[in-house]
Amino acid sequence: MPRNTIKVCVNGAGVIGKRVADAVSAQEDMKVVGVSDVVADWRIKLLAEKYPIYCSLPDRLKAMEEKVEVAGLLSDLLEEVDVVVDCTPAGIGAKNKAVYEKAGVKAIFEGGEKHEVAGRSIVATYNYEESLGAQFTRVVSCNTTAMCRVVGGLHKAFRVKKARIVLFRRCCDVWESHRVGCTNTAVPELHVPSHHAPDVKTVIHDLDIVTMAAKGSHNLYHMHMAMIELTKPVSREDVLETLREEPRVVLVYGEDGVMALNSVFELARDLGRPRGDLYEIPVWGDSVSVEGSEVYMVWACPNESNVIPDNVDAVRALTEAEADWRKSVEATDKALNVLSKLY
Amino acid sequence: MPRNTIKVCVNGAGVIGKRVADAVSAQEDMKVVGVSDVVADWRIKLLAEKYPIYCSLPDRLKAMEEKVEVAGLLSDLLEEVDVVVDCTPAGIGAKNKAVYEKAGVKAIFEGGEKHEVAGRSIVATYNYEESLGAQFTRVVSCNTTAMCRVVGGLHKAFRVKKARIVLFRRCCDVWESHRVGCTNTAVPELHVPSHHAPDVKTVIHDLDIVTMAAKGSHNLYHMHMAMIELTKPVSREDVLETLREEPRVVLVYGEDGVMALNSVFELARDLGRPRGDLYEIPVWGDSVSVEGSEVYMVWACPNESNVIPDNVDAVRALTEAEADWRKSVEATDKALNVLSKLY
Amino acid sequence: MPRNTIKVCVNGAGVIGKRVADAVSAQEDMKVVGVSDVVADWRIKLLAEKYPIYCSLPDRLKAMEEKVEVAGLLSDLLEEVDVVVDCTPAGIGAKNKAVYEKAGVKAIFEGGEKHEVAGRSIVATYNYEESLGAQFTRVVSCNTTAMCRVVGGLHKAFRVKKARIVLFRRCCDVWESHRVGCTNTAVPELHVPSHHAPDVKTVIHDLDIVTMAAKGSHNLYHMHMAMIELTKPVSREDVLETLREEPRVVLVYGEDGVMALNSVFELARDLGRPRGDLYEIPVWGDSVSVEGSEVYMVWACPNESNVIPDNVDAVRALTEAEADWRKSVEATDKALNVLSKLY
Amino acid sequence: MPRNTIKVCVNGAGVIGKRVADAVSAQEDMKVVGVSDVVADWRIKLLAEKYPIYCSLPDRLKAMEEKVEVAGLLSDLLEEVDVVVDCTPAGIGAKNKAVYEKAGVKAIFEGGEKHEVAGRSIVATYNYEESLGAQFTRVVSCNTTAMCRVVGGLHKAFRVKKARIVLFRRCCDVWESHRVGCTNTAVPELHVPSHHAPDVKTVIHDLDIVTMAAKGSHNLYHMHMAMIELTKPVSREDVLETLREEPRVVLVYGEDGVMALNSVFELARDLGRPRGDLYEIPVWGDSVSVEGSEVYMVWACPNESNVIPDNVDAVRALTEAEADWRKSVEATDKALNVLSKLY
Repeated sequence: MPRNTIKVCVNGAGVIGKRVADAVSAQEDMKVVGVSDVVADWRIKLLAEKYPIYCSLPDRLKAMEEKVEVAGLLSDLLEEVDVVVDCTPAGIGAKNKAVYEKAGVKAIFEGGEKHEVAGRSIVATYNYEESLGAQFTRVVSCNTTAMCRVVGGLHKAFRVKKARIVLFRRCCDVWESHRVGCTNTAVPELHVPSHHAPDVKTVIHDLDIVTMAAKGSHNLYHMHMAMIELTKPVSREDVLETLREEPRVVLVYGEDGVMALNSVFELARDLGRPRGDLYEIPVWGDSVSVEGSEVYMVWACPNESNVIPDNVDAVRALTEAEADWRKSVEATDKALNVLSKLY
Repeated sequence: MPRNTIKVCVNGAGVIGKRVADAVSAQEDMKVVGVSDVVADWRIKLLAEKYPIYCSLPDRLKAMEEKVEVAGLLSDLLEEVDVVVDCTPAGIGAKNKAVYEKAGVKAIFEGGEKHEVAGRSIVATYNYEESLGAQFTRVVSCNTTAMCRVVGGLHKAFRVKKARIVLFRRCCDVWESHRVGCTNTAVPELHVPSHHAPDVKTVIHDLDIVTMAAKGSHNLYHMHMAMIELTKPVSREDVLETLREEPRVVLVYGEDGVMALNSVFELARDLGRPRGDLYEIPVWGDSVSVEGSEVYMVWACPNESNVIPDNVDAVRALTEAEADWRKSVEATDKALNVLSKLY
Repeated sequence: MPRNTIKVCVNGAGVIGKRVADAVSAQEDMKVVGVSDVVADWRIKLLAEKYPIYCSLPDRLKAMEEKVEVAGLLSDLLEEVDVVVDCTPAGIGAKNKAVYEKAGVKAIFEGGEKHEVAGRSIVATYNYEESLGAQFTRVVSCNTTAMCRVVGGLHKAFRVKKARIVLFRRCCDVWESHRVGCTNTAVPELHVPSHHAPDVKTVIHDLDIVTMAAKGSHNLYHMHMAMIELTKPVSREDVLETLREEPRVVLVYGEDGVMALNSVFELARDLGRPRGDLYEIPVWGDSVSVEGSEVYMVWACPNESNVIPDNVDAVRALTEAEADWRKSVEATDKALNVLSKLY
Repeated sequence: MPRNTIKVCVNGAGVIGKRVADAVSAQEDMKVVGVSDVVADWRIKLLAEKYPIYCSLPDRLKAMEEKVEVAGLLSDLLEEVDVVVDCTPAGIGAKNKAVYEKAGVKAIFEGGEKHEVAGRSIVATYNYEESLGAQFTRVVSCNTTAMCRVVGGLHKAFRVKKARIVLFRRCCDVWESHRVGCTNTAVPELHVPSHHAPDVKTVIHDLDIVTMAAKGSHNLYHMHMAMIELTKPVSREDVLETLREEPRVVLVYGEDGVMALNSVFELARDLGRPRGDLYEIPVWGDSVSVEGSEVYMVWACPNESNVIPDNVDAVRALTEAEADWRKSVEATDKALNVLSKLY
């Protein structure tokens, strides 16, 4: 391990955690020194083939050791790491904060935690600088990250007057969809506006945005339907060009056969990345439409994986391993094969 | 049959047609003299227990007669009716128009046909008068009817500046969902704005409205997420009161356990109407939210049945059996047990 | 109320309870004197328009009274009834047994309870006599009832050597499918044989049967795939005739357009019963196939409603209001419009 | 390219074709010299980054060339290949046979074609020898392959008396599930026994097997529920050991958290193969149950990918590059990382 390699541990090996571990491992300047969890089902057994496994709670140690080789307790692991990425279930991260403070390690929280837990939030292509050198930051949720990338790009280019976005969310994750999903229904978020809009503002502080949300009977990818008022008229081509240039945003087209969330997933799997993951936000080019100064468009939000690159960048921001967001994003994207054009 | 009874036939006994037949039969001033179709599967066999069955196409007559008693051809039936309600699949109605013109009968088309086929469109609670005495009118689609009722009510009360509505549609009808549905996906309408907005304007001519649409992996009820700019600030209570007063619009609440489309359907079935039908548009009262002069809300669109009362009213409008829309709507709603409050 | 009217109360107003209440009300010889529950959401509010509402637990009384008019506690209600139909969630009935014993009322439990709770189980068309005059009986689950009707009919006619049945269950009920369903998966019952086979034997004591089960991503109706070895060869026509004659079993055909569970539901709704309910077990006539002495067939199990007639019959059995199972079944079926042929 | 490298082309780049191309490319002794299709949507564009693209039909050439670089016509390609793997839609392969005969190339057909098209069928681990040196063979469908592996393994070890298997199929493939899926239903195959049983016999000629099938509302993986009578009693452990030893069959356990089809897919994605593919048949060890001489069990059939290794082996069988099935299977499995234990 080169001397400057950043030592990272992942606490919580769920949907996000296992992907963060693999993405960190793919970087040249950082390394996973351990993955910690509280159970040892097939998921941990598979991870154990790649990473030392630790136990986050002393009273779970014995049960875990019966199923998998455990290298120690999380408290041991924290002594040797530079950054912990906390991918525990929503709300647990807030409780872990004191542990990280006591251990004197830097920590990244995920979007299930409130902004206040970290005191700052990050979407690497928008506000990387705000997390430079801090002890804590929060990588916002998949939905917030997707909106920040697309609307943030338009905001930088054209100034957004008011963004109105409706989110059609997947109802559960793939791994758990035998027990907590939705069947033959759509479920509205009855609190309007939904919590997503304020969350976007933790990254894009001067944005006027309102969101409504519902979840549907599918378990993969969210869909965002956006109606975005700009401060002045634009051409459709200017919007498309802005999207083409924005990092981690790509264009897909129904006229090429990319018709719906399922086709995006099939496309993602054909790209050959681990787990069929997609790090980019695919905006349907066909859907981009302009009426005066209002722009309409639809994009998919690959909920399992689109925040993974931002977690990697957050490691560099906290450790100040890289001060320039563009250089961090380029390094991350090269290692993960993030593309500016999918096909 | 009293002397003034309006003689109605239904052409096309699908999802809408069979419901129109039953709803017309429930009225005191009209009667179904025949139902016409081109096949004789179980659906027609059941209808044959209630109505004389006719054959719409001479070359289908023999095949139909092998399965069900056929009273004659549609051409025979047209000679004895005052109004035909054309519930044939989208696009067939346009072809049938010449037949109805030749037979000299009045005809109602459904939302699958273009406005131009009839030359006018109707949502009974908004523009009944436009169809009075005409030979043709068109009952707009379930989605358009729902939007006209709710947004129309707000427009009358407060003047709408611009309505933005995102539709999360069911992907197919119940009866056909073994072969044409969606599975584990959401499918965006890539043509933005979607066709729904212009369709609303065939009824509410002076409305500024834009719509986006996607369909989900469920087969019953659409959901509409609305962001409605009014010309001036209103209070939430004023909006709720307007919705309470609007005919064929009702309030439901998540706090009473009505959480999603599936709960609305369970509620509808408990109301005891045929097929568990719901004629009203249920707006979630919890979701109604006001920020200055912009109003947000979510409603369900019971796609199989919400246009049924408007078909009945359209019969009265074309035949001038009733000049006052309120009286027609009251008669229809009394016969169908349409409520102003569901529970 | 005629002097001999059986006074019934329903404890637990869920999917089964509300249907039992309506079915009991439809009979000439019995009456619902109260419905008891522990909450007061929209479902109870609707029932309150038809039945006196009671509260099953004293500590829930106050909360219920805030939302609906409550006539008293379940303990009050039990003093004036002949039979309580316990439709509480699985496992609660077992706890309630002592309450009913203390109150000296007869009680019917549902299939969520174990056979031992009542000491006997009933499918009215198979073993009505076993419950005559008893204090307790148990109406078996929808799946068990469906198997007892069809396999029981074949057993009576041909003696079954061994029945092998695979159940594809719906994953959740309609009303709850926004939170506990399955999404894009099938979930096997890993305990093989599944519990359904022993449950059938509580009714058909001498049957050799094995069952396997899985649940799918739909919320309405189970499907049973049956492979039934008989003690001797039969003809396909004999099997079909046996099914035609068996009460509460009907034949449907793919060649008439009844292709799948969704078409059965559409057909059920067209029959015009409350909630689109189906009390009969529809066996696909096309699927009935015979190879030597083994018979294959597929049927649907309308899980919300197929046990409802058996609950009504169970009331008559316990109270000895009718000693002859055929007369009870005929009375029930006439009142509920149960058919021997759907179309 | 070493002198003995087998030159393979793939005709039809759908779900199976694109996977076959990648799997062939991963072998040391064969090479993809071209992929042919009739359209050029995003899927072909992605493949064009890896393989020369050909056009299967002259009249489609121009349209394809507008979207992607085309190396020539299929007829050109056939001149330079040893084996064509025909992965065209069901029924097209039969038409292509004459083309391959005329070109004098060996050809592999897929399970959508009838056995008679090739005259022989192959599951590499069961009857590899039957295809040695032939001009044509047919890799049977995913369902048939899965049954041949598991039941074939038991048949070799214990002699099967009669196998009864119920298939709960996925309703459509992921890429097409926005338009042809099922929604909220289960669809029985009304022709009983289903076609799967005779198809198994094209590989295991002396097996007594009957199958029934239905499809559910999910788009990934079939599930098989098996009831297998053996010729004599066995122990559960013997059955488990046989399954552990059988190539391309693995055991998974609900007690490790592998609960349903969705968890198998999550597990498959974590294995890190392209597209999250799974080549093995995962049998639930928990479900394996023995009663006397009858064995029960449940397995998943990873429909997109489980036949891929057999296609690779079929190339070796036809070309006689390897006479020993075990050596071919070992080579294939090493290149594709097929495992005997997943975790």
